[in-house]
Amino acid sequence: MPLIDKLVLVGAGLIGGSFALALRQANAVGRIVGVGRSAATMVEAQRLGIVDEVATDFQCAADATLVMLAMPVGQTGRVLRALAPRLGAATVVTDAGSTKSDVIAAARAELGQTFPRFVPGHPVAGTENSGPDAAFAELFRGKNVVLTPLDETEAHARALVRDAWQQCGARVFELTPGVHDQVLAAVSHLPHLLAFALVDQIAAERNAEQLFSFAAGGFRDFTRIASSHPEMWRDICLANREALLVELSKYENVLAGLRKSLVAADGAAVESLFARARTARNDWLDPKSANRGASA
Amino acid sequence: MPLIDKLVLVGAGLIGGSFALALRQANAVGRIVGVGRSAATMVEAQRLGIVDEVATDFQCAADATLVMLAMPVGQTGRVLRALAPRLGAATVVTDAGSTKSDVIAAARAELGQTFPRFVPGHPVAGTENSGPDAAFAELFRGKNVVLTPLDETEAHARALVRDAWQQCGARVFELTPGVHDQVLAAVSHLPHLLAFALVDQIAAERNAEQLFSFAAGGFRDFTRIASSHPEMWRDICLANREALLVELSKYENVLAGLRKSLVAADGAAVESLFARARTARNDWLDPKSANRGASA
Repeated sequence: MPLIDKLVLVGAGLIGGSFALALRQANAVGRIVGVGRSAATMVEAQRLGIVDEVATDFQCAADATLVMLAMPVGQTGRVLRALAPRLGAATVVTDAGSTKSDVIAAARAELGQTFPRFVPGHPVAGTENSGPDAAFAELFRGKNVVLTPLDETEAHARALVRDAWQQCGARVFELTPGVHDQVLAAVSHLPHLLAFALVDQIAAERNAEQLFSFAAGGFRDFTRIASSHPEMWRDICLANREALLVELSKYENVLAGLRKSLVAADGAAVESLFARARTARNDWLDPKSANRGASA
Repeated sequence: MPLIDKLVLVGAGLIGGSFALALRQANAVGRIVGVGRSAATMVEAQRLGIVDEVATDFQCAADATLVMLAMPVGQTGRVLRALAPRLGAATVVTDAGSTKSDVIAAARAELGQTFPRFVPGHPVAGTENSGPDAAFAELFRGKNVVLTPLDETEAHARALVRDAWQQCGARVFELTPGVHDQVLAAVSHLPHLLAFALVDQIAAERNAEQLFSFAAGGFRDFTRIASSHPEMWRDICLANREALLVELSKYENVLAGLRKSLVAADGAAVESLFARARTARNDWLDPKSANRGASA
């Protein structure tokens, strides 16, 4: 018998679809039922072999081993409200949302006594593409998945979700929800906001066409994440806005400092910030070089 | 006889080295002499076949067809001052600097009556790597090169530089220096500043190691250009600081607007900016889809 006899997948886009495909590839799942607000997306997911069948309500959850929530985080409350009365006595629920405090608050409010069988999770992986046809079984291989279980989270539920992600090839970590949200605000949510902001600034210029025509590889990579799903990222930014606003303020201060250095033509200050950043990034990419310092 | 009988290359890093290698591959150059402040870099460039010989002053320019300046733009004045009295009667001078107004001002001041044989240029191409071993012959293939000739620039000089870049596989455009500097401030210099700033912000945090450990592909691509050469980018940011400060102010305003939307939990405003940015970026990458609108 596979790890997961029956999986109910809520949302079959990049993340949910890839989770399903990875579990299938690992022979870790029996039957997969898809539920989603867009019938067209679900038909597509079925055509692509992501789900075996499509359901229009949560009666299918009564005998499910696991329910995976993989839709934009803004829908979490509404989905859990509909799901709660249909959950089987042993069904475990998890999610793949990029924010955790808000998801946990919604789960606590909606799941009641089932809350201990909810395991909050976040695969720190993705691409700028979205929808079922963006999904692929290898997305999570070697990538980090963060679980943020609570004191009351049941051990077997936690183990099931951990095993499922490991079957997908991921490395599983645990953090508190608050630390998760701060970390992700800094290294993921803020960069997304910054990339969207820059592209919108260029697009709003009178000579936008000329500007884009001279944009090169640096701009392309810097803004790759600005091709991400607007609704998904709206939800993330709103759900995690407290932590995000803290990071945004820090960033605005760094920019204000750089502005001052530029106005003063203080080349030493500018170069020293650039050199620190380069060294930090290169050390991150290649920790072996961490004591080597910046090379010219 | 090749297009360029003798090339003097000032600086043999990523850009200068790739220019030399591309011209060699196209059989468009005879002899290449390298001049640079770092003897070690020049020895390396000779070892890699970028230059045939290394010179320690500009006497080698007397019979050169073309002198290419490919060192950080902050050195332009000093280099041209040393070069000017050594230039042959027919030698053409060009540069590869990312800023043009400041380079032109330096060239006008230092070259005197030779100024009409100076063709300001900028290959809009690069990688985050630097130094001779980062150079490769294909760097400019299909990439844009901007020339910003002036009224007094001699036609044959302009033609020689254009032909040289075309031999490297580049597409050559002409802009006024002011337009060039505004365009590049927006699509290249500002993104570099923003990427350096974000990495330095993360690196300065007490939990920097934890933050970097959960940074994923989005962060990696967003910050790729923060691994660029600190001195080169210091010079660019200072040389073009007027245009850069204008773009930075616009960006700070966009961020202030986003902050307001987040504080007000105005999801519609946030999503609408994200959606505009995504559509603009996708249309840029795939102009055929320009009238299709954003896809889900």
